[in-house]
Amino acid sequence: MKITSVETVDVRFPTSLALDGSDAMNPDPDYSAAYAIVRTDEGLDGHGFTFTIGRGNEVVVAAIDALAPLVVGLDTDAVFGYPGAFVRRLTGDSQLRWIGPEKGVIHLATAAVVNAVWDLFAKVQGKPLWKLLVDMTPEEVVSCVDLTYIEDALTQDEALGLLRRLEPTKTAREAEMREHGFPAYTTSVGWLGYPDEKVRELARAARADGWTSFKMKVGVDAAADARRAALLREEIGADARLMLDANQVWGVREAIDAVRALAEFDPYWIEEPTSPDDVLGHLEIARAVAPIRIATGEHVHNRVMFKQLLSSGAIGFCQLDACRLGGVNEALAVLLLAAKFGVPVCPHAGGVGLCEYVQHLSLFDYIAVSGDLTDRVVEYVDHLHEHFVHPVQLLGDRYCVPLAPGYSSEIWAKSLSDYAFPAGAIWGA
Amino acid sequence: MKITSVETVDVRFPTSLALDGSDAMNPDPDYSAAYAIVRTDEGLDGHGFTFTIGRGNEVVVAAIDALAPLVVGLDTDAVFGYPGAFVRRLTGDSQLRWIGPEKGVIHLATAAVVNAVWDLFAKVQGKPLWKLLVDMTPEEVVSCVDLTYIEDALTQDEALGLLRRLEPTKTAREAEMREHGFPAYTTSVGWLGYPDEKVRELARAARADGWTSFKMKVGVDAAADARRAALLREEIGADARLMLDANQVWGVREAIDAVRALAEFDPYWIEEPTSPDDVLGHLEIARAVAPIRIATGEHVHNRVMFKQLLSSGAIGFCQLDACRLGGVNEALAVLLLAAKFGVPVCPHAGGVGLCEYVQHLSLFDYIAVSGDLTDRVVEYVDHLHEHFVHPVQLLGDRYCVPLAPGYSSEIWAKSLSDYAFPAGAIWGA
Repeated sequence: MKITSVETVDVRFPTSLALDGSDAMNPDPDYSAAYAIVRTDEGLDGHGFTFTIGRGNEVVVAAIDALAPLVVGLDTDAVFGYPGAFVRRLTGDSQLRWIGPEKGVIHLATAAVVNAVWDLFAKVQGKPLWKLLVDMTPEEVVSCVDLTYIEDALTQDEALGLLRRLEPTKTAREAEMREHGFPAYTTSVGWLGYPDEKVRELARAARADGWTSFKMKVGVDAAADARRAALLREEIGADARLMLDANQVWGVREAIDAVRALAEFDPYWIEEPTSPDDVLGHLEIARAVAPIRIATGEHVHNRVMFKQLLSSGAIGFCQLDACRLGGVNEALAVLLLAAKFGVPVCPHAGGVGLCEYVQHLSLFDYIAVSGDLTDRVVEYVDHLHEHFVHPVQLLGDRYCVPLAPGYSSEIWAKSLSDYAFPAGAIWGA
Repeated sequence: MKITSVETVDVRFPTSLALDGSDAMNPDPDYSAAYAIVRTDEGLDGHGFTFTIGRGNEVVVAAIDALAPLVVGLDTDAVFGYPGAFVRRLTGDSQLRWIGPEKGVIHLATAAVVNAVWDLFAKVQGKPLWKLLVDMTPEEVVSCVDLTYIEDALTQDEALGLLRRLEPTKTAREAEMREHGFPAYTTSVGWLGYPDEKVRELARAARADGWTSFKMKVGVDAAADARRAALLREEIGADARLMLDANQVWGVREAIDAVRALAEFDPYWIEEPTSPDDVLGHLEIARAVAPIRIATGEHVHNRVMFKQLLSSGAIGFCQLDACRLGGVNEALAVLLLAAKFGVPVCPHAGGVGLCEYVQHLSLFDYIAVSGDLTDRVVEYVDHLHEHFVHPVQLLGDRYCVPLAPGYSSEIWAKSLSDYAFPAGAIWGA
């Protein structure tokens, strides 16, 4: 089977109209996807995308187009047989590398292409992506990972050792997941643009639906943050988990002061207290506000950054993003690094299709890498799932195990055409 | 005066044909510029660009186009009066920020636009950029800088203090620069693709021309590195400076071993030993190979990364890049950080027009920020200057002070049209 083309679509949803997704850094996002369809000569397609919040989505689409010549014409046996080499072919292109390397637009585009290829691979195998990964040998998993620049923290032998340790007990955890699903938390109650009464009502409804972990946006106004945290804590009770998310609005010293002021509400974590690039800043904040733990990851752009955040103790939760990182392969690298340093992975989700993606990664993480559910919860936001052919399914506060072959990343053709920017029916009217 | 449009050109030079610019990571670059012309309603234009090495240049052009609506229609008095606010308008766009933030393609594009606006500002004032900056008060300079995320390392008062300290003696250093120019080093002798005999001949010729600092590319093959370092040391003598540049090819432990193996050739610095994202890795290498100093910067994507590299002692030379950073304003932030931590700035140059840019930054650095020439040398590569309206001028191994109004960033119209990709005469033939 040969890859014959990579088609791209600029898809945007007008979410800014209802302030869904509003936070301290992103007041009015239009959730968008730079979408890639990897077509083959045998009729099977792989679908992948990267998530953005509106303007600039066309730049990421242009970057996918720039990567396409590296993919078109490849034999899928070669790609699936050597997934590590395939990824290095994309991230290592000597000219394209300059405009990253492995960060920003070109890396977001790499994720769309790599994830589309994994969707195709899983469809060819007739398995959901998590199961494809679970059924791999430790050697096969490690061969997917580019250890360049992280070998000082995680050698190939250590990676193999982590996977081999859990090999004998994978079946039991797979059965457990199929029966009970993977625990989640909700971000849908606490968007910054929502009035207090709406937050209160949503929290009450979510509590009634069985949710026990709730995230709230903070960072624009200290008094409002405290008022809303008190309100939310009142609604969810002392036993529920309350996560606070500052979306990078603070400097290091501001962050320390702000977190101390919010400590009385017993936050489970503080998310994105400052710049995602500031490893040493996160470390300083973490030391100053302990035992409150720091979470970050949705803007952490590659495994080299995660290596530092994880090995130094700067973060207590690893919130990897399925398309900020360069796709499945680099996500595997970060799962292994997190396991090595004993940091729980709670992936970033929401947006467009991130929930659909990350459920696969967390299932693989639990079954084959960490073997532990302690402190592991996957973000859940109830937006835009209706556009997906195989949307996530929740039962109470748990993700049900996805069973359809692929990476759950395919958007309905009608949604692709209706929401295509700027000519689709929704935008062109 | 109003900004009426931002025009873009994708300019590429076929440098890969002669292996000029070849190194361990970049075997066959086509030096390119994503070029922006900021046009006004009074006929004056600002010219700026960002440097890339070929494929992907069109993605950066698309990103400049995405930034243009934030610039078109602005009054230049407002822009020049509040240059810090202008930059935050570009880097802070809540939707575009997602595809960075402040890194990769969108940040390279920001640099092109910001530098074009500074070129315009300097032309309006009838001064070369360095002189425009030198004539600003400390308060005006600091107002250009976005201290977000770096205030924990450099407060506004500290920045003002650094500048005020040198205020009384600026005139003397300006006169010194006008008379003697700024010291440079040459990278033109040691490209990896050059055969030994060519390296030997070029080194001999450069030595005869008065050069005393020479850079050589390493990192593909340890035996070849040692052979070429010995050869070059033999040609340039024991007193000359020999810089070694690995262009990120090593992991942390490999780097330590490789540098130790090359220590006998008395390197002045080791450049880019590993991933530009690896702050803690650079720190580990620096400690292991001291007193040999580490240099990096051409891929260090913003002031937050430099804050960590400088404050931790991970680098001994700061090689800021005029368009990897988000333009003049962020370069000023890094000059101030480097001065605070006592690290000499030796800007990355070469490529297309980087020499033209950075001469202005180093002149300002010496006259107003560091006040010290110790260990300060600007990279020089003798390619592609003929395409610039105001090319750099050297006398021996010193950059002559540029006198034409602007940022020396304007490329001849004929070069823009001949080398436009893919339709220009050079490419379309």
